[in-house]
Amino acid sequence: MNASFAARLDEYRSRLQQNLDRWLPPASHYPARLHEAMRYACEGGKRLRPLLVYAAGEVLQLPPRKLDAAACAVELIHVYSLVHDDLPAMDDDDLRRGRPTTHKAYDEATAILVGDGLQTLAFQLLAADRDSGLTAAQRLAMVEILAEAAGSRGMVGGQAVDLAAEGQSLTLAELEALHIHKTGAMILACLRLACATDDTLSAESRAALAHYGKCIGLAFQIQDDVLDIEGNAASLGKTAGKDEAHLKSTYPSVMGLPAAKARAAELFADAAASLALFNDAAEPLLWLARHIEARQS
Amino acid sequence: MNASFAARLDEYRSRLQQNLDRWLPPASHYPARLHEAMRYACEGGKRLRPLLVYAAGEVLQLPPRKLDAAACAVELIHVYSLVHDDLPAMDDDDLRRGRPTTHKAYDEATAILVGDGLQTLAFQLLAADRDSGLTAAQRLAMVEILAEAAGSRGMVGGQAVDLAAEGQSLTLAELEALHIHKTGAMILACLRLACATDDTLSAESRAALAHYGKCIGLAFQIQDDVLDIEGNAASLGKTAGKDEAHLKSTYPSVMGLPAAKARAAELFADAAASLALFNDAAEPLLWLARHIEARQS
Repeated sequence: MNASFAARLDEYRSRLQQNLDRWLPPASHYPARLHEAMRYACEGGKRLRPLLVYAAGEVLQLPPRKLDAAACAVELIHVYSLVHDDLPAMDDDDLRRGRPTTHKAYDEATAILVGDGLQTLAFQLLAADRDSGLTAAQRLAMVEILAEAAGSRGMVGGQAVDLAAEGQSLTLAELEALHIHKTGAMILACLRLACATDDTLSAESRAALAHYGKCIGLAFQIQDDVLDIEGNAASLGKTAGKDEAHLKSTYPSVMGLPAAKARAAELFADAAASLALFNDAAEPLLWLARHIEARQS
Repeated sequence: MNASFAARLDEYRSRLQQNLDRWLPPASHYPARLHEAMRYACEGGKRLRPLLVYAAGEVLQLPPRKLDAAACAVELIHVYSLVHDDLPAMDDDDLRRGRPTTHKAYDEATAILVGDGLQTLAFQLLAADRDSGLTAAQRLAMVEILAEAAGSRGMVGGQAVDLAAEGQSLTLAELEALHIHKTGAMILACLRLACATDDTLSAESRAALAHYGKCIGLAFQIQDDVLDIEGNAASLGKTAGKDEAHLKSTYPSVMGLPAAKARAAELFADAAASLALFNDAAEPLLWLARHIEARQS
């Protein structure tokens, strides 16, 4: 692996797409409308979480085949959470990834079921991924890691706190707890899933990758808040300025915009520093951290 | 095991309750309102699916400890599906198990997240159930069985077809396909999960239990349709006559009430007949079939 991870982005994205195509039921499969909507919801997006899984796999010098199910599963959980978060009873968003949200393109009931079915599929494919060269114990560990991160003590819990926090003024600690659950848990899971495919990994390496994941997860969310202020709908592919309209506490609202930006930069630097023990092999995750830091959407 | 399975119902129900209490996050755990609502949603109910798991375990002479996670997981999936099905965008029900539905007792967003979190927890506990004496391969097989039954090719798919069928006139074959997905898949999964805990089980025994599960699943649904006509809200714990009000095709509407009752009776008899190879050991599942056949709610 001499070329930068950047040179392999398209390859990994198309690898993910092939796996999504393989695992998602055909759009013609009974019930066709539901399966068509599940595929619709999975189109587009930055595929950041699967890329994190594959980049961690490169750092650990694992064959990508061992990462395919994890990459697919984290994307399915992410997409399901977007479909449900966009519902009228939740964030009530009409636009996602530059297109109508699933409940707009189909209907609310279908969107609820799309999210439900995508979540189930994430666990199903981890369990059914027999050709991966992973042991049953490794795949079972992956089910547990994914469930911990996605559930009520992770992502779903974070979304509940986020909704309850609308119109409330949060402290920095409360805001951080919210985002560690809502966004951070699943980003950390990307790293933990890659680690779960390698039984020989040292505790030190595991801890380093987990620290990287925690820093990136929080930095990503701070950046999201900053982009919501500085970005526009065209580059975001979703409505900008929503946080202020919804009276949400954000990093800029709690600490001020310049301090929020400084905190994000600090976290990105911390993430990079935690990878020192991997020496040159760290490049894929270092590149991804810089790539995320530079994003405009 | 000399006494009838009936004598052990309460024991199994309290065993399930203890396991739910153990696996559900405490109601005080962050985020407290979500976890309180998850526990609220899990209260009450007939616990039919867990009882099927335990009864199958008795027939196979397995220690109940090996069935605990499966019993808990099927109940969590069942409860999550009820919480989502009751939402205004779905069946729009105010009453469930004789109490306000979760979105009525809390709010819609919370109910969506309660369902999401309960689904995740079902997979999490199967993966995390280390004291069960089950191998990793067995627990992984259980994740796969549960996901197949719960997902878009099973229960979630059936719910999508059910919603799309409102106001439509279905053929008997269409109605049967709907219910094999919506209700049948998860009832069959109860039997398949019990089988997954015993690697020594013959293909013949597996097939017999699966056949029992399929018959019971369909019979149960036909009975549901019949009870919707003949029952009342007090004994049902939910609104009666909803099928007709929603212009839903039901077994009575498609085949007439007497023929629907006869078909259910036939299926219950078929379920019982499939257990002949277990001889006297079949009693728990035979008793449960009769118990279901006699239910008034």
